Parts: sequence; structure tokens; C-alpha cells
Amino acid sequence: MTKQKRFLLAEDLLPRQWYNIAAEMPNKPLPPLNPATKQPVTVDDLSHIFASECAKQELDQTHAWIDIPEEVQERYRFYRSTPLVRAYALEQALGTPAHIYFKNESVNPLGSHKLNSAIPQCYYCRQEGTTNVTTETGAGQWGAALSYAAKSFGLECAVYQVKISMQQKPYRSSIMRTFGATVEGSPSMSTRAGKDIITRDPHHPGSLGTAISEAIELATTTPNCKYTLGSVLNHVALHQTVIGLEAEKQMEMAGEYPDVVIACFGGGSNFGGLAFPFMRHQFQTLNGQCAKGKRIDFIAAEPASCPKLTKGEFRYDFGDSAGYTPLLPMYTLGHDFKPANIHAGGLRYHGAGVIVSQLLKDGFMRGVDIPQLESFESGLLFARTEGIIPAPESCHAIAAAVREAEACKKTGEEKVILFNLSGHGLIDMTAYDSFINGDLINYTPNL
Amino acid sequence: MTKQKRFLLAEDLLPRQWYNIAAEMPNKPLPPLNPATKQPVTVDDLSHIFASECAKQELDQTHAWIDIPEEVQERYRFYRSTPLVRAYALEQALGTPAHIYFKNESVNPLGSHKLNSAIPQCYYCRQEGTTNVTTETGAGQWGAALSYAAKSFGLECAVYQVKISMQQKPYRSSIMRTFGATVEGSPSMSTRAGKDIITRDPHHPGSLGTAISEAIELATTTPNCKYTLGSVLNHVALHQTVIGLEAEKQMEMAGEYPDVVIACFGGGSNFGGLAFPFMRHQFQTLNGQCAKGKRIDFIAAEPASCPKLTKGEFRYDFGDSAGYTPLLPMYTLGHDFKPANIHAGGLRYHGAGVIVSQLLKDGFMRGVDIPQLESFESGLLFARTEGIIPAPESCHAIAAAVREAEACKKTGEEKVILFNLSGHGLIDMTAYDSFINGDLINYTPNL
Repeated sequence: MTKQKRFLLAEDLLPRQWYNIAAEMPNKPLPPLNPATKQPVTVDDLSHIFASECAKQELDQTHAWIDIPEEVQERYRFYRSTPLVRAYALEQALGTPAHIYFKNESVNPLGSHKLNSAIPQCYYCRQEGTTNVTTETGAGQWGAALSYAAKSFGLECAVYQVKISMQQKPYRSSIMRTFGATVEGSPSMSTRAGKDIITRDPHHPGSLGTAISEAIELATTTPNCKYTLGSVLNHVALHQTVIGLEAEKQMEMAGEYPDVVIACFGGGSNFGGLAFPFMRHQFQTLNGQCAKGKRIDFIAAEPASCPKLTKGEFRYDFGDSAGYTPLLPMYTLGHDFKPANIHAGGLRYHGAGVIVSQLLKDGFMRGVDIPQLESFESGLLFARTEGIIPAPESCHAIAAAVREAEACKKTGEEKVILFNLSGHGLIDMTAYDSFINGDLINYTPNL
Repeated sequence: MTKQKRFLLAEDLLPRQWYNIAAEMPNKPLPPLNPATKQPVTVDDLSHIFASECAKQELDQTHAWIDIPEEVQERYRFYRSTPLVRAYALEQALGTPAHIYFKNESVNPLGSHKLNSAIPQCYYCRQEGTTNVTTETGAGQWGAALSYAAKSFGLECAVYQVKISMQQKPYRSSIMRTFGATVEGSPSMSTRAGKDIITRDPHHPGSLGTAISEAIELATTTPNCKYTLGSVLNHVALHQTVIGLEAEKQMEMAGEYPDVVIACFGGGSNFGGLAFPFMRHQFQTLNGQCAKGKRIDFIAAEPASCPKLTKGEFRYDFGDSAGYTPLLPMYTLGHDFKPANIHAGGLRYHGAGVIVSQLLKDGFMRGVDIPQLESFESGLLFARTEGIIPAPESCHAIAAAVREAEACKKTGEEKVILFNLSGHGLIDMTAYDSFINGDLINYTPNL
């Protein structure tokens, strides 16, 4: 009998509903505020820039389960379930008694978990008669996923990609163009927000904050155009819960239950996607109900150079650089924080999503900081053992898992560690080249 | 009831044996000859450069079924079965009554079918006590797969990559280095064969033929080093038959049987891998046995600029440029043919594998020529409909499938078309950039 390495779900076991954690949190997140009136924003307010259904989902604190539209389920079935994989070779290389599992979200044609939210967002836009969508993207995983989803639903798509990431990984903008999208480096001269930033700082490398400002400006000044977001917001993490819902059933197939659940952290969508479905059992314990599993250590792995979870402040702040978004109650480094030029472009964001921020405040999870070199060291070890070259973002999750596994080696504990492999790094090979050549450095943030 | 798009096999249905077509062909292939003695080569001769087990498989014309070692099966299970996918969106875009299916070999971590043979070749090398492997690679799909397989079996790996391909897709050599391999552009100054070629033609862009010469020279002059090949030879196509064996069961799940089976053609391994398991039923008809399926049209799609199947000559020729290999009975453009700089680097080879050559001669299959621009046009349509950016090599199979589907549109036939998506094109984005910008051209071969 050989050891089973990969667990897949039969189609009839795939989730038919997303899990909305906001309905079950002991302390509900504070409301986003209109910056002018300081009043909570409404679904109507949000519907100006987002698809109405997404706006509704964003503020829903009532329904714990939200139906996945049939057409979205059909498209999920093209690549889901994604495999849950036992990382035997990595365990062996580390000599750890821990059992390491990863959920492999890199296997879809776009290469990352981002497709899980791009599909429903474009679906709702098309249902509501929208013809154009726009967005920001860092490393380009979200932009690529949205470009394909838009094309497949017959929508036009314009993407603002963070300038430094565009230069670091030129193939990603090629991918977006291959799917028919228009791509612009941010900050750009095509929006007022971009021009203002360039005027103040002609060499600004861009950030997710600057790109969000530009995309929102385009959406609000273009007829029949909606803005879509790849992380941070509640409805994005909601769509991503298919990851954790599947993983829960797959861990059951493997006959195990995680002690530690880890994901890398940019705005919180891949973290929330994996963690929230497991976390709901902890709330049930709190509420006096029977807990399904044991207490889980939830770890969000952020870059040491952009440490909002461990060194940020919990307060109301803008989600973008220019101040176009509502004020969000979150852990933040300040919306004008200029992140260092790390290769994990998807983690270069100043704030944490509203739900995650509340959960962190309430002690349900913790953040850890991973220096860039440690992230690539762990990523390279993972590639050479498990055969998958991880995205620089995902390397942070791997590094956190390696830390936990090495701790187990010292204590002898057989912990079950589950992490999210949010994407592959095939478009990020310049980063690996630089690491192997010894050209990468660690950054200390300017706080 | 929604339409099922993707078919996967349960683990207990995965092949446990490879199919060796040489044992069942009506006319056996002619033997490879020692160029000095003109005598048929023996397993012993081949064992000087290949793993002995591969040498044995290469000349086996007796056993139709060859056991897949347990450890190889275990590694296959990491990514197999690969999905069989119904290309509904492509069908719709073409407005064809044909049913188009593709076998998606791009989903493994290395991105192509090449891993199917890299694993057993490295497995046999390790079993036989080899410490070093070397090979040639064109676009780099084979080199990447071998680099990972070698690392995972604890072997050192040196790869000669065709120089022009190395320049066209620099990420591929980064991938090989990430897996710990040494990579050299061919022709190089590190071998006698390479030096001779450079002396004659300082600007030689390289070809699979030049890279094979260099790798064989390294293998024969390095202690404990074996040469491995990614296509052309019988044992490579043998390993690839897992593709067709799976596809046969998956077509059954879909309730259909192909009228047309298509793959792109470089040396013949992805073509043979898909086609041979289906073709065996045609031999059974010939032999008076009951045929399982209807008569299938087997199509090998080669680049118009390197047309050995349609414009080559059937004769004995060397497999490499320098003349280090045995003489092989094959359709060839001549071992000194210099292929044009098309982006489908894996198809830039002067000859066809021995088995395929015999099958073509005997009328069991046919070749079609695809101009470079047509290949990318079809590839782009496929990307925008099915969401997967295909490798430039695979674009040739897609183009042939599109031609067949368009013919069905005219005749109204509901043909079932099955093609092999041998790999994804995420490392080939410069080619798509050039195509979208209108910078690509067609080449007419110098015959």
C-alpha cells in the first residue's frame, strides 16, 4: 500500500455555497464609513462602483451561507476541486515529524486562487448589464484572472498594474493582453490620481494603493464600467472560501485535522479563503456549541517589509492612496505607505481586510513577518522537493510552514500543518534568478 | 443538468502498464544500425549511453504491455490522471457541429507531457546506480521536466538547450536552474561537436540535432553519466502512452469515441503517447479480430517550416547533427537540416521517430503542415475561449483541430475530435507578444 499524496473531491462534493464569516463572528466588524459624512456606507453607495450583488455581499452580516450561482459553479468545475497534497518530500527534507499539507490553488489555467473571485465578479457584472470592468493588480495574478474571466463573459477589461511589478514580470502583462485586456502601468498619466502621484514623486514605483485609486477613478468616470477588486474586501474573501470548504472535506479524506492553518497575506483573500471555513468551528465553541475540531493556530504570513498585521495600527483608513474608497476599520501602515520593491507584488499593500482586522484584534489569528530572503529560501526548498515553483507571495506561507515544522522537529510534536499554495511562480522566474545569483536583499520598512 | 466539461479518472483506473505498439504493428520497424558496421544495434550497444532498462524497451518488439514500476506509478499519481476536457467554448466560437475534446497535459507542475518520461528515465538511472544525467532540450519543456525528475531522484543534471530557444524564452533556463540543473546553450564551446558546428557557422542558432550531439558527447566522456532523450525514441513514446490509455477510458466516461486524433509533432512522443493506445484497435481489425472502435483519422501536426512527415524522405539517417547516434530508419529532412527560428522550439527537429515513420509509410496516420501564423491564430482563439494559453508546439495541434472542426461546419458532420494539449505557453509569452504585435512571420523551408 503506497501512501496517498493527493486528495481530490468528486464533483458532487464541491461547495454549492460560500461561507460568510461576518454572520457568525462574535464581534461584528465595524462599518466602512463615507469619508465626507462619516456615516456607514450603504449597499447603494457601494453599487456605484461595484456590481450590486457584490455590494450586497460586502455588507451582509446576516447570512452565513450564500448560494453560488449555477453558472459560477459550472465554471469552478473546470478546475475545482484543486488538489490537497501531502508534502512528503518536503517533510523528509526538513526531517520533521510534522505532517505538512498544502492546498494547491496553482493548478488552474491562470495559475492562482484569484480566478475563484474573478469568475463571480464578472458573472454578476454581466448579469447586471455591465459592459466594462476595471481593476488594479500587483504581481498580475488578479489582473490575469480578471482578464480571462471578463473575456469569457464578454466584458471589456482594463487593468492598472503596479509599475514596479510590471517591470519585474513582463510576462504577466503579456498574459493579460493575450486575453484581450488593456494594461497600463500605475501610477500612470491617464488618471488624475496617477498624475498627482507622479507630480509629487516622478519615480514612484507604484503600489496596490495607487493602482486601486486609478481603477476606481476610471470606473466612476466611464459609462457602464464597474470596478472589481482582487482582495481586501469581504465579498472577495467570501468567494475564496471555496478553498477552505474543499480543504475541510479533503483533510477528512486524509483522516487528519489541521493544528496550524497558514496562508500568505496581502489583503486577506487567500488567507480568509482557506482559514474562515475552519475558523467557524472556533466560534461554535465560544457560543457553547460543540466544536468540530481542536483549536487551530491560524497564521497569516506577511512580508517583513510591509508588516501591517504585526506593526500596523487598528484604525479607520482609506483603502487606496488617493482616498477614493470608503474609510475602512483596519490594521494599516497608513494609506500613503510606500512598500519596498519586493518581488511578492501581491503582498505590497498597506492595510488588512476589515474582517481579518477584527479577527486579529479579537485574538482568533496571528500574523508573522517573513523577510524576503527567508521566503525565497523556503520557496526554493519547496520547488526542489515538491516540484512546484511557488509564487513569491506563496513563498511566505511556505516559510511560515517551514518555521512551524522546524519547531516540531525540536519538540517532537506531530503537528498537522496546512498551508495555501496560492499560486505558481512561473511568471516570476527573474525573482528566482536574482535569488540564486545572490542579488536579492531584505528590506526594513520605514515606519 | 449542466454539461460535464472535465473528466478525471479515479486512482484505481490509472494505467499500471505502458503500451508497446512495436509488438503489435503489422510491419515491424526496421532496426537501427551501427553506422560503422551497418549491423543492427543491440541492447548492449544502447546501454553505453542509455539506462539499460530504456535500451531494452527501445528494441522490444515482443511485449505489448510493459509494467510501470510501482515508484513511477506513485509519482504519476501526483499529477495524473490529467483532465480530458470538452472544449465547449471553442466549439461555440467556431460554430462547429464537431465535438472537440482535449487531453490537458499542461496541468502538471512542469507544464507539459514531458514529465511522463522524465520520471521513469531518471528512476531507471538511479536504480542502475547512475549519478549524472544529461540531455538536449529545445523550448525547454523536456529540460525542465528532466531537471526536476533528476533532482527528485538525487541525480545531477546537465542540459544543452538550443541557443535560439534559450534566447526566445529565458525563463525556461531559470526554471532548470531553480531545480538545480546546469544549463548550456547549444552549439556550445564545451564539446567537440559544438566547437565543430560553431567553427563552420559562428551564428548557428542551434537545433535539437546539435544539442543531442553535445549531450551524447558529454554522456560518453563523463564517468557514471547517462544520456536521456525527450522524444524520437521508442521508449520515450512508450512512457507517454499513459496519455492515450487514460484518454481512452475518459472518452468512455464522456460516452464518445474519437473520429479524429491529433497531436503536434516534433519527434513523435506526445503524438505516439496519445495515438498508439487508440491505434492498437485498428491493428486488431487488420488481424481479423473484432475492432473496438470505428476507424480513426490520426493526424500529426508539424510546422510548415520543418515538414519531415509531408516532405521528408524515408531512409536511414542520423538522429543528431554530428552523427553520434545509430542510423535510424525514418522520415527525415537530412540530419544537417537547419530549421527556421520558429517559436515552437520543440518541433524544430529534422526526423520522425522510427515507429511513427513506419506507421506513416503503412498509411495508419497522416501528417499536416501548419504555418507559424496559423498556429498562433488558433492558439490565441483557444486561450480566449478555453482560458489556457497553449505552448507554441501545442498550437499546431489546435490549428489542425480547428481545420477539422471547420470542415465539419461545411459538411455538417458531428465528428468527435480529440487533440493533445501537450503543454502550456506561460514561458512563451514573448511569442504571443510578437504575434499580437504583428511581428511574427511564416517560413518556407529550404529543402
